[in-house]
Amino acid sequence: MSTTDLSEINAFVPGSDVSLRGRPTGPLSGLTFAAKDLFDVSGYVTGAGNADWARTHTPAAQHAWAVQTLLDAGADLIGKTITDELSLGIFGENPFYGTPVNVNAPGRVPGGSSSGSAAAVAAGLCDTAIGTDTGGSVRVPASFCGLYGIRPTHARVPTHGMLAQAPASDTTGWFARDAETFARVSAAMLNVTIPSVLPTKLLVAPDAFAFADASVSAALQDAVERLAALIGNRSEAVLAPVGFATWSRAQRTLQPAQAWLTFRDWLDEVNPRLAFSVIRNLLAGAQVSPQEHEHAELVREEARGHINALLPPGTIMCLPTTPFPAPPRAAPYSSQAKWRARINCLCSHGGLTGVPQVSMPLGCVDGLPVGLSIIGARGEDATLVAVARALEAQ
Amino acid sequence: MSTTDLSEINAFVPGSDVSLRGRPTGPLSGLTFAAKDLFDVSGYVTGAGNADWARTHTPAAQHAWAVQTLLDAGADLIGKTITDELSLGIFGENPFYGTPVNVNAPGRVPGGSSSGSAAAVAAGLCDTAIGTDTGGSVRVPASFCGLYGIRPTHARVPTHGMLAQAPASDTTGWFARDAETFARVSAAMLNVTIPSVLPTKLLVAPDAFAFADASVSAALQDAVERLAALIGNRSEAVLAPVGFATWSRAQRTLQPAQAWLTFRDWLDEVNPRLAFSVIRNLLAGAQVSPQEHEHAELVREEARGHINALLPPGTIMCLPTTPFPAPPRAAPYSSQAKWRARINCLCSHGGLTGVPQVSMPLGCVDGLPVGLSIIGARGEDATLVAVARALEAQ
Repeated sequence: MSTTDLSEINAFVPGSDVSLRGRPTGPLSGLTFAAKDLFDVSGYVTGAGNADWARTHTPAAQHAWAVQTLLDAGADLIGKTITDELSLGIFGENPFYGTPVNVNAPGRVPGGSSSGSAAAVAAGLCDTAIGTDTGGSVRVPASFCGLYGIRPTHARVPTHGMLAQAPASDTTGWFARDAETFARVSAAMLNVTIPSVLPTKLLVAPDAFAFADASVSAALQDAVERLAALIGNRSEAVLAPVGFATWSRAQRTLQPAQAWLTFRDWLDEVNPRLAFSVIRNLLAGAQVSPQEHEHAELVREEARGHINALLPPGTIMCLPTTPFPAPPRAAPYSSQAKWRARINCLCSHGGLTGVPQVSMPLGCVDGLPVGLSIIGARGEDATLVAVARALEAQ
Repeated sequence: MSTTDLSEINAFVPGSDVSLRGRPTGPLSGLTFAAKDLFDVSGYVTGAGNADWARTHTPAAQHAWAVQTLLDAGADLIGKTITDELSLGIFGENPFYGTPVNVNAPGRVPGGSSSGSAAAVAAGLCDTAIGTDTGGSVRVPASFCGLYGIRPTHARVPTHGMLAQAPASDTTGWFARDAETFARVSAAMLNVTIPSVLPTKLLVAPDAFAFADASVSAALQDAVERLAALIGNRSEAVLAPVGFATWSRAQRTLQPAQAWLTFRDWLDEVNPRLAFSVIRNLLAGAQVSPQEHEHAELVREEARGHINALLPPGTIMCLPTTPFPAPPRAAPYSSQAKWRARINCLCSHGGLTGVPQVSMPLGCVDGLPVGLSIIGARGEDATLVAVARALEAQ
């Protein structure tokens, strides 16, 4: 990708030429990073992927926690990346700023909402990039762009200075092309040493592999075998006994309901221009009945109990990150709605239960990348990173 | 207004410099007109007040009926005017092209959706302008801008080449500053001679005057007295026996349901950027239940029967066009939603029953114009125009 320039990839917010040097002697010195335009960079407006949001907000007074942490660790910030509007989108197509190019899947979407961050890393424009994952916004672009990506344990990484969408599910995540860089960045962001001790038990989720396209499950089998060989103790266990549709429905109730609370005052004040799909999503959140909301909260509690029992420390589970590789760009809303519903099914455990997840670029279907994910108990973020690093080092 | 230039008023679609001479020896020779950007002008894209609509449509192959008719009658077309997006709006604030300036109510909205047409005529930039009225989009800006404006009998004026919104309610209307010009244009558009014989009975709608602000009803009393003196036979009659709220609810069921059918394929294909208020309105149409729709159809039938009995030929009724003068610009969505609901109450008889209505600039509240309307039996358009002309000539 040495000949790729910025404009070809369209990963960065137009007109926002941010460039900040990291601390000279940090553990990430020599690395470059980009920040999704949901993270505050002091002196710049956080634009959130929407021209009317940018127009109605003032420059940030200080850096977001994640930006400050990477600068303190020595990485250089090279730009602010395009995001789906208000982080509400899973395909990475932004009608204001365009769709970042997925160099690993030409003609396909990059995935979103951390679209520009994933596209920039995939294209080699920077070594790592931060994103947000509320309903899949790091995991999905990691899978579609062929990258390592993490959704940390909910509330594990401070979100100060990151634009909220649905705080009960919001997380800060990051991407890298290789597991070694991914581990270095993870150590800084998690403020831990990545352990050398690996988990002792691997669960394979048959329901998740059955839910994905057969071609995806087949494409990931080699990686599952390698993972099983690495861990040494493999068995099967169902991830979602009540069904992905039920979990997804709960997450698609709770997340939009909270997003509506986040954005309703701004919507009222500004009457902004947003894509049809984004407003439809927001209004779905406005229309959740108390009964439906209460039921979704119960499903969330049940899911948390199940996953806590399923994944004690020392046990991890693997599943396909997405049910298919990146779909074509510029598809009709109705097609995207069907794809999004299936993607949500394989992602909803994250927002519902808060468990950490790492997606690894270990599958390929018809030349298109697709990720294999591992999840673990809350707080086992570094263990998942250790597994990714050990698997790459094999 | 002789020093007013185009850019100060912001009535015209940016970058669309249309200029076409009318037939040299027509009855409207010497007059200039503008066309709301919902009407086709051959060789130009009809933009419908939305950048994504303009981007996804090709130039028109021929003039709309209304444009051709005015050109044939001798008027010169001087430009395409700004409209609320897809004609879905009543205040005239367009987030893509800005809000046309209401020279007769500084700091206030022009009213919509025929905002630019009304603003251009009010500012003296042209003699007349065509607009569309589905739920009030000519009547409301006529009232707010202090103009003569007509919503013709439904299906009386051909709508070929006019972008549909809700065909069961859509009409083509026009504006003028004075009744004489208004009558000349009306004669051409209606293809009739404006009669000299006036109606013989005037009904005053006490429910409509009670529904308007007290200051508006008071401000229109002189005009009502002059009208009564002109007609000679005055009595009171309720316009909406079942209540304006019931009629408005029916119209706000039927119109958005049909608008959804009009625009849903484009929304699906393009996933366009639209103002939050516009998409909320469209989605309300998507969510109408069959039961609610059936009930609304019954209310429409009942309203038609009532108004047919109320308004035989020779009888007209007067009412305030709007319940208040133009509200301030840039109000929050929640404030506008309340104002819109009240405006709809005084406008819904048009879309429901199809009767013609002429708004006359005969009221003033705190320096702000407000219109007095007259309605008549279906097909009595020219009679209403005759009344407006005779009243001005008194």
